[in-house]
Amino acid sequence: MKERVAVLGAGALGTALSVLLGGKGIPVLLWGRNEETVRWLREKRYHPTRLTPEIILPPSVEVTSNPEEWISIPLLIYCLPAQAVREFFGRYRKDLHPEVKILLTAKGFELETGLSLDEVLREIYSSDWVEEHFAVLSGPMFALELARGLPTVSVVAGYKEGIRRFWQELLATPTFRVYTSDDVIGVEVAGALKNVIALAAGAVDGLGLGLNARAALITRGLAEITRFGVALGARPMTFIGLAGVGDLILTSTGDLSRNRMVGFRLGRGEPLEEVLKTTREVVEGIPTTKSVIRRAEELKVEIPIIHEVGEVLFHGKEIRKAVYDLMTRTLKAEIIV
Amino acid sequence: MKERVAVLGAGALGTALSVLLGGKGIPVLLWGRNEETVRWLREKRYHPTRLTPEIILPPSVEVTSNPEEWISIPLLIYCLPAQAVREFFGRYRKDLHPEVKILLTAKGFELETGLSLDEVLREIYSSDWVEEHFAVLSGPMFALELARGLPTVSVVAGYKEGIRRFWQELLATPTFRVYTSDDVIGVEVAGALKNVIALAAGAVDGLGLGLNARAALITRGLAEITRFGVALGARPMTFIGLAGVGDLILTSTGDLSRNRMVGFRLGRGEPLEEVLKTTREVVEGIPTTKSVIRRAEELKVEIPIIHEVGEVLFHGKEIRKAVYDLMTRTLKAEIIV
Repeated sequence: MKERVAVLGAGALGTALSVLLGGKGIPVLLWGRNEETVRWLREKRYHPTRLTPEIILPPSVEVTSNPEEWISIPLLIYCLPAQAVREFFGRYRKDLHPEVKILLTAKGFELETGLSLDEVLREIYSSDWVEEHFAVLSGPMFALELARGLPTVSVVAGYKEGIRRFWQELLATPTFRVYTSDDVIGVEVAGALKNVIALAAGAVDGLGLGLNARAALITRGLAEITRFGVALGARPMTFIGLAGVGDLILTSTGDLSRNRMVGFRLGRGEPLEEVLKTTREVVEGIPTTKSVIRRAEELKVEIPIIHEVGEVLFHGKEIRKAVYDLMTRTLKAEIIV
Repeated sequence: MKERVAVLGAGALGTALSVLLGGKGIPVLLWGRNEETVRWLREKRYHPTRLTPEIILPPSVEVTSNPEEWISIPLLIYCLPAQAVREFFGRYRKDLHPEVKILLTAKGFELETGLSLDEVLREIYSSDWVEEHFAVLSGPMFALELARGLPTVSVVAGYKEGIRRFWQELLATPTFRVYTSDDVIGVEVAGALKNVIALAAGAVDGLGLGLNARAALITRGLAEITRFGVALGARPMTFIGLAGVGDLILTSTGDLSRNRMVGFRLGRGEPLEEVLKTTREVVEGIPTTKSVIRRAEELKVEIPIIHEVGEVLFHGKEIRKAVYDLMTRTLKAEIIV
């Protein structure tokens, strides 16, 4: 009998991972916070809004909204938003299984403190505990494609080799390939900051500036992500990998990305309030931009593109002016770190 | 009076660079090998096939097909194919201006020898001479967008700082941003091998495998390019820059790319001969694949994606089988170099 896995968060990725694990015959408890979504999933076996109706939960997937049911399970996959991490793990800290393994799919920087999720967890638990129990899943993964069984490649980062290998084995299928990495910080930073660059890349597309400009923006954005990550202790080569370049390409060029779409609409001239009013889901790139600008100042890291995104989002700077300012900076050597 | 520049090769990029330099008031001699194209360009002032008719050569651009006219000019921009480098510089070696500065835009590996263009030049000239006189221009540049004045960012790699700075200053405009790099080998390898990965990325799109698969293919392709480059003496961080990631993103996701289009049609099931019969221009990715596979064997570098491209192109392997073989390799850690 295979060990049971609890998936926390019945959004697109949580549901897709439940479909994947269920497809391997693994018993899954999918926990959602939204009663209505949970009821729909339980009765109709497909997600009401975030995936398509032909994607059906396999029989080994149970759906619940009751935390009592997952709290004792020693395998947790956290698929809730980044900004909910402190509250969530703060609340359930003492009740988790003592041998629990937790896989985070969220990436971001906490809005109030500017801390990475790894740093937030180290404030809640001891550092040793975090390193013993947590791992992060990242890489170029649109949930819809993953759920459809289209070929997808990802990376699991964890401090302990045993933990990384465990999740790698558990998740891999013939169409879902999982690499491992020990650079947890690098994978987290890459996953969080790509949302900001995707916003900017969307704006370049919305402005009609062309494919050269988009490729350059993504590349120079990657240089900023790398510098910022290295300043926090990440390894530079992580950013050339799946969690870095891979996810950045997907999010910045793929039509399915929310952050890109928000940037695109801004580039087309829609006011920010208008765009946000009609965007139902969390746009992680916006809080991340704010946190990262503050953190980069402390770390003395140069992040000109992210800085201009902040000017546009929070200080009403005209978007064409921001692009012009980026293009006409002093000429220099291409040095990344 | 500004110094005159000779642009060698009246294809898309040669013409676009002539438009750019002419727009800065620099006198340009654009040299083409095709009499008909040269006549058209001279009379109508736009390119007959490779750019759009609204892109007009500025008055300071002269067009010729006579080598006598450019041979004494000390500033040369080489925009002919990679496979023509040996023959071209072999022929004109002794006649070049003794203080000549040469900027190469071609990238590739010589089909017969498997050598990089840098290595080919070192066989023709002395190594010192190559380092004193040559530089390479690369980065995400579709010629059509460059000629239209859409924002474009590039990199000039050269062994000598004076040479790099010279071309940087000469080429830069408010919409064309030029960085410098001293990693000539890295920039060359990245520029050449991206064509092979673009072929594979096109095939993934043609097969309808989705955006996750495309992003993963590009990223794992970048890891192969990096490994191969490092084995030849390049610096790993070059591959995260404009000539690496930047150009790879552009060529692998942009609709304007020839190599991508050939891969796309193969992915859709068209036979290779059919595709090549209807592709007018040089598809650099095909000879590059052959040379690189041979060279990688000598260097003992693992290049599974490029290897599968070779299997499909030269040994009739079924394209779905190639993708399946890539996805089901042994699981491992994500190590790039």
